[in-house]
Amino acid sequence: MRIAVINETSAADRNADILAALDGLGHDVVNAGMKKSGEKPELSYIHTGLMAAVLLNAGTVDFVVGGCGTGQGFLNSVMQYPGVTCGHILTPLDAWLFTQINGGNCISLMLNQGYGWAGEANLKFIFEKLFCVQPGSGYPAHRKGPQRESRELLGRLNRITHHEMTEILTRLPGEVVSPVAAYPGLIKLVESRPGIDRVIISTLKNRLKG
Amino acid sequence: MRIAVINETSAADRNADILAALDGLGHDVVNAGMKKSGEKPELSYIHTGLMAAVLLNAGTVDFVVGGCGTGQGFLNSVMQYPGVTCGHILTPLDAWLFTQINGGNCISLMLNQGYGWAGEANLKFIFEKLFCVQPGSGYPAHRKGPQRESRELLGRLNRITHHEMTEILTRLPGEVVSPVAAYPGLIKLVESRPGIDRVIISTLKNRLKG
Amino acid sequence: MRIAVINETSAADRNADILAALDGLGHDVVNAGMKKSGEKPELSYIHTGLMAAVLLNAGTVDFVVGGCGTGQGFLNSVMQYPGVTCGHILTPLDAWLFTQINGGNCISLMLNQGYGWAGEANLKFIFEKLFCVQPGSGYPAHRKGPQRESRELLGRLNRITHHEMTEILTRLPGEVVSPVAAYPGLIKLVESRPGIDRVIISTLKNRLKG
Amino acid sequence: MRIAVINETSAADRNADILAALDGLGHDVVNAGMKKSGEKPELSYIHTGLMAAVLLNAGTVDFVVGGCGTGQGFLNSVMQYPGVTCGHILTPLDAWLFTQINGGNCISLMLNQGYGWAGEANLKFIFEKLFCVQPGSGYPAHRKGPQRESRELLGRLNRITHHEMTEILTRLPGEVVSPVAAYPGLIKLVESRPGIDRVIISTLKNRLKG
Repeated sequence: MRIAVINETSAADRNADILAALDGLGHDVVNAGMKKSGEKPELSYIHTGLMAAVLLNAGTVDFVVGGCGTGQGFLNSVMQYPGVTCGHILTPLDAWLFTQINGGNCISLMLNQGYGWAGEANLKFIFEKLFCVQPGSGYPAHRKGPQRESRELLGRLNRITHHEMTEILTRLPGEVVSPVAAYPGLIKLVESRPGIDRVIISTLKNRLKG
Repeated sequence: MRIAVINETSAADRNADILAALDGLGHDVVNAGMKKSGEKPELSYIHTGLMAAVLLNAGTVDFVVGGCGTGQGFLNSVMQYPGVTCGHILTPLDAWLFTQINGGNCISLMLNQGYGWAGEANLKFIFEKLFCVQPGSGYPAHRKGPQRESRELLGRLNRITHHEMTEILTRLPGEVVSPVAAYPGLIKLVESRPGIDRVIISTLKNRLKG
Repeated sequence: MRIAVINETSAADRNADILAALDGLGHDVVNAGMKKSGEKPELSYIHTGLMAAVLLNAGTVDFVVGGCGTGQGFLNSVMQYPGVTCGHILTPLDAWLFTQINGGNCISLMLNQGYGWAGEANLKFIFEKLFCVQPGSGYPAHRKGPQRESRELLGRLNRITHHEMTEILTRLPGEVVSPVAAYPGLIKLVESRPGIDRVIISTLKNRLKG
Repeated sequence: MRIAVINETSAADRNADILAALDGLGHDVVNAGMKKSGEKPELSYIHTGLMAAVLLNAGTVDFVVGGCGTGQGFLNSVMQYPGVTCGHILTPLDAWLFTQINGGNCISLMLNQGYGWAGEANLKFIFEKLFCVQPGSGYPAHRKGPQRESRELLGRLNRITHHEMTEILTRLPGEVVSPVAAYPGLIKLVESRPGIDRVIISTLKNRLKG
């Protein structure tokens, strides 16, 4: 699986912990956001939410690991867009249930609140459980059917409630889309996988010009 | 403040605990969803998410307390709609920070996972902290400005990424909208406040006919 | 390793979850306390604390998994005795740190408070991390030396602050020691391992007569 | 109530947060241990455990707030002594239940693990709930009787399993007792309340000489 790690400014110093915790699990990890605190350009959770949505909707990555100080900001930001199912994941149990029940493609981590000494070990335990079970396999097992139906219905209504991603990219204010389109390496990253959505790329590039 | 409590089927037995925990805080509480497990008609988190969005967008209530087994399902459901900022709230600290930083109008509670003996006391402590601080007052205080800017930007992009609520109500599949429109007391509840959005009401009533 | 599971009355219904969670980890597990709620004779945390201390001090088992509604009662009960280092363990991270830093021989689980749906999965994750690292290996690694010194000092002062276990068994009031000595299978269990402390056994048997 | 705050070295930097969180609750707070990291003389959890036991057994304070990185070290250290009932307290709910059910005189806080941004607010919420209910009032209310009986039995067996505090103070190794007896202000603090146990004081002073 291809996973993007995307950190915003308030918890940028957790980026190294997240990368280390994902290491060794056999996934292709791309580090798309901020690497440390104070680094320029800065990304707010508004920007990392859009960045996650672009990478998921273009098909560049299969999963996004994001977050912010409490996890609520990135969660609300990324959930504005189509094609995203995001869990607020604090413990290994949260992770294990989210994969089985919700089968999502994004998580929001709590990276300042309650993030103390040994927080990096907790991240490791979270990722172990997030990726050790089949997405959508259901929990408990006998609830697999109704849980799948809810996920499918959520997917259908997601397309009804949201505008198309390209239309969104065209209409978003510059202060939201420009820092994302211009973020070092981002457009190159979006294009880095065969079969991605070319319209999203070209729309993003157009916003870069304007 | 007018608060709607909305329970789906898997955690419907927590409804009494939530009402008891809200009691005495001085709010006008309406109990809009399921009251206990096994009750008919059943509502899934798909339905309670829409119900919450209708009540908030129509202006019937100021705040929605929802949730599900893990809290992730209702969270992802209600976040499909415009006009909703929802926190995943497990502790009094989560509540207190969410009000100050995110100033949201909805929370999703974890009502089966980790919900054991004395869970009703934890709910009480959560609500105390959720409603004891000024929404959007900022935490820490010196971050009030940037946090407000992020909230405002989130509000603007929310209207850009989503279709209008009435359009959504018109286009949603019947299996999503009908159980909500037909839910006992729901339409009467939506209409129960002066100054609400009449178009949302009439759209909902139309779906009831069709 | 030989592990005793010991449940008191308030959380006796968790006994099956604990056994299931320990299953498959390759340990020799003995189920020494209550198996389900309402069963007679009942054991309070006062009794299970003594039972744990007897099994550890006699050398019958290497580790005790106990607990109660909040975990605080069993913890305070078992810590009255010599030869016990007990952790209050709620999460996999707690477990993993406790083994490395404290290298204890007992844990107290929170079995009603916060014990909800999927609690049995959390127990499984706790035991995985409790037993996957070397006791006393230190965390972080460079703190191994000072952490070992503290553990050794704790062990020395433990013998200074407490009376001998046999003296304690002789002097404890009947309402504490009798339900333990007379508990079905307990004395047989204590004797079930070669090389155990015969004086503790004979003292316990004497109390049974008196 | 008179409360001693006692920090060991690994989490000494939390001392200011604890004092701030206790402020305004109407208690007489004494700051008996380390004030910040790196300060000399250093106290390990072995020392702060003894210090807490001396202050409680002498009658100098009514309650001790201690802790360490995970909370498990101080907990196991202070529980070696007679006259101590200690809770491992991580949340407001833990605090509120501990006071009602266990009616203890000591808590051990987790001050590095999981202690992140806004940790000081969590401490404040913990203390609010720890001191807002009557110790030993029982939870739920109808369990008041059996819970009191368990506490009283625990108190009686505590005196049977432990040596007398003065005997302990006489026999403890110098590396445990000397740093406590010689800690700046400690003996003066122990003597600072009318009606305290003079034998404990004189024993402690004797150890200072030797």
